Amino acid sequence: MSSERTSILAANAAFYSAIAKGDYRAMELLWARLRPVACIHPGWSAITGRNQVMASWRTILTRPPAIKCSDPKVFPLGEAAMVLCREIIGQTVLAATNIFVREAETWKLIHHQAGPTPEVAEEAPPRQRMH
Amino acid sequence: MSSERTSILAANAAFYSAIAKGDYRAMELLWARLRPVACIHPGWSAITGRNQVMASWRTILTRPPAIKCSDPKVFPLGEAAMVLCREIIGQTVLAATNIFVREAETWKLIHHQAGPTPEVAEEAPPRQRMH
Repeated sequence: MSSERTSILAANAAFYSAIAKGDYRAMELLWARLRPVACIHPGWSAITGRNQVMASWRTILTRPPAIKCSDPKVFPLGEAAMVLCREIIGQTVLAATNIFVREAETWKLIHHQAGPTPEVAEEAPPRQRMH
Repeated sequence: MSSERTSILAANAAFYSAIAKGDYRAMELLWARLRPVACIHPGWSAITGRNQVMASWRTILTRPPAIKCSDPKVFPLGEAAMVLCREIIGQTVLAATNIFVREAETWKLIHHQAGPTPEVAEEAPPRQRMH
């Protein structure tokens, strides 16, 4: 895999890690500062502007969902990049679009949209009980 | 407004016109041929690949929804561009992300995601009845 794809995937993974950990500081660092940003959370209207987008994350990250990213696919677009992936929260599967731009040699988010799918995630097998 | 923004908005408007008219031929011309494409219809899982994406539009356009695009916002990204907009179908309001790339001097779609919002569109006022 190219180093570009590797670094885009790393930025995408860091995004989901920040959500799962409820790490607002990490989330703030992941979003672009030099370009307009936007976000469409599942079932929400679009939010535009860095202050509004970060305020939405501050709210969400007070009760961080146990989210996992699966099947990320990278679409390089020059100075930008798109990643499509599944978001798995319990048995719920969301379909997500994440848009990144290169800012100071780092891939930063400028947009995230996630929405419901009819898919049902398989639950992890229960741990074997010790009797 | 820059001519770049104007041409991106024109491509976005043509996309919604093709949906509303059920014009599959126009839709086919609007999607990129030289790059991988994807689509996340409301409530669907992600579809990837031109054949699969176009097959989904062929199905949808057999019964075209009376869709209107409202409040499009352009985010130029170099050789790519993002447009966020509202999609209004009756009283339903969806939030959409459309990603375009420049291909042979024309802006072509490489991705579309739309999802539900809690907004309720105002219905057009009823025409005055003639008694």
